Amino acid sequence: MLTKEEIVRYFKSLQDDICAALEKADGSGKFIEDQWDRPGGGGGRARVIHGEVLEKGGVNFSAVHGTLPEKITAKLGVATGDFFAAGVSIVQHPVSPEVPIIHMNVRYFEMSNGTWWFGGGIDLTPHYHEAEDEAFFHAQLKTVCDKHDVNYYPRFAPWADNYFYLKHRKETRGIGGIFFDRLGGQDGHDRASRFAFVKDVGEAFAPIYTHLIKKNKDKPYGDNEKKWQALRRGRYVEFNLVWDKGTKFGLDTDGRTESILMSMPPMANWVYNHTPEAGSREAQTLERLRRPVEVMPV
Amino acid sequence: MLTKEEIVRYFKSLQDDICAALEKADGSGKFIEDQWDRPGGGGGRARVIHGEVLEKGGVNFSAVHGTLPEKITAKLGVATGDFFAAGVSIVQHPVSPEVPIIHMNVRYFEMSNGTWWFGGGIDLTPHYHEAEDEAFFHAQLKTVCDKHDVNYYPRFAPWADNYFYLKHRKETRGIGGIFFDRLGGQDGHDRASRFAFVKDVGEAFAPIYTHLIKKNKDKPYGDNEKKWQALRRGRYVEFNLVWDKGTKFGLDTDGRTESILMSMPPMANWVYNHTPEAGSREAQTLERLRRPVEVMPV
Repeated sequence: MLTKEEIVRYFKSLQDDICAALEKADGSGKFIEDQWDRPGGGGGRARVIHGEVLEKGGVNFSAVHGTLPEKITAKLGVATGDFFAAGVSIVQHPVSPEVPIIHMNVRYFEMSNGTWWFGGGIDLTPHYHEAEDEAFFHAQLKTVCDKHDVNYYPRFAPWADNYFYLKHRKETRGIGGIFFDRLGGQDGHDRASRFAFVKDVGEAFAPIYTHLIKKNKDKPYGDNEKKWQALRRGRYVEFNLVWDKGTKFGLDTDGRTESILMSMPPMANWVYNHTPEAGSREAQTLERLRRPVEVMPV
Repeated sequence: MLTKEEIVRYFKSLQDDICAALEKADGSGKFIEDQWDRPGGGGGRARVIHGEVLEKGGVNFSAVHGTLPEKITAKLGVATGDFFAAGVSIVQHPVSPEVPIIHMNVRYFEMSNGTWWFGGGIDLTPHYHEAEDEAFFHAQLKTVCDKHDVNYYPRFAPWADNYFYLKHRKETRGIGGIFFDRLGGQDGHDRASRFAFVKDVGEAFAPIYTHLIKKNKDKPYGDNEKKWQALRRGRYVEFNLVWDKGTKFGLDTDGRTESILMSMPPMANWVYNHTPEAGSREAQTLERLRRPVEVMPV
């Protein structure tokens, strides 16, 4: 049977592999690592890069355990007890506004009463919308999903649109991707088949992002594009601090703040009532982010 | 008897007076105004300045009414019904890291069943802690409070420390000030005496901030100080988006996002695990922000 130790071992090796691939894609930056312990049990390896292509990027591994506060068990709808949670979390903020921001997370959760599930997802936040990149990104994710269950992509893609949504802006964070949670022993799946899917999601990350970096990193840009990038980074901050359940969970459970907030961008800006010029690339991007999204209660 | 109309008239004139005083202190910037209507009832006058001293500042007036969603009445512990809320909200982000960020809010709330209260406060967020400015700031607020009730300052100063607290950083947002809420007809006060106090708080704002601007705006600073300012602005964002009840209330009740988020700074930065050099002005400031604060459930 699949053990926690095996999952932890895999997540660690995934972190290693992704860091190596990102360093290669960057060409100059190297990850620095902080190992940390969680007072309540467990800990993690936080890794951050400041490179030539990746202005600020984090690839974090953590495996924590302990007793869940009742406040959280109530929210999760699980019995009080000991929990174990492990995962890899990534956010990359590139230097160039022509390269998209990307986020990936894969995680495993189990309770002492035997409840278990996997969760995760990958989503893309281009500063400038490129239809070709969007098509590529979603095609890659669909391929990964379809290999495991043809129902995955049709469920997980709308779930991402729904999850990465700034209700107060009526904007999505980006062009979506896939998001999934509480994938347990339902729908004919077992721990091994869920794990096989999550592994493939994790392993899809580096090739996808490396491709998008290579394709876009040498495109020219100027002050105008940098200014727009700072505004989009501001929206990224808004999503993560106002709406992201993972961030809330971390801050509520006395998680390691510096690891949770490694998702925060460098140099974000807020301009009151900013409205891009009609027909500009900025306006076209906003239009794409304001596509109709059915907001489901999750 | 004091009417809603009188309170509204006063808040509008307070907005006018404060804008005039800030334009004078800035010496160059002028407020631009957006009038807006709230679909559910009421509206406001949003005013924003981009000046020489004040990089980005908002002075907003609003007066809104309608039916409170049950989600909110439950939180407030009031019966379902129609509400009326009016107030003035200010956040100023100065160009110079030597000039503190300031926030003020005064507000009035009433329900159709006759429940009413005033709330508000002023708090100061210096990028660099200056003991002299802190002493001046608190002395001014204490004078305003003492004029109305000697119990105000001893209650409202700790309330500010408690409210403007970043639990996930174990840091206060700044050096505190005063914060108060639900000042109704308790403790021998009536609507007129509460209103008289709130007026004095509102009118204390311009002289206090003008003094702090004049005293600090011509101090020299360099790249190092601008970098630190961007990090402190990042913390300001974290407080407002993660912890501030007013922001949450606004975003939850479909408030006008651009008015609510006028508190967001220009150019904020996040540096992973940033630790200032021991003994530096930055370290001394952090030490002050990490003073012990008794966190009360509010």
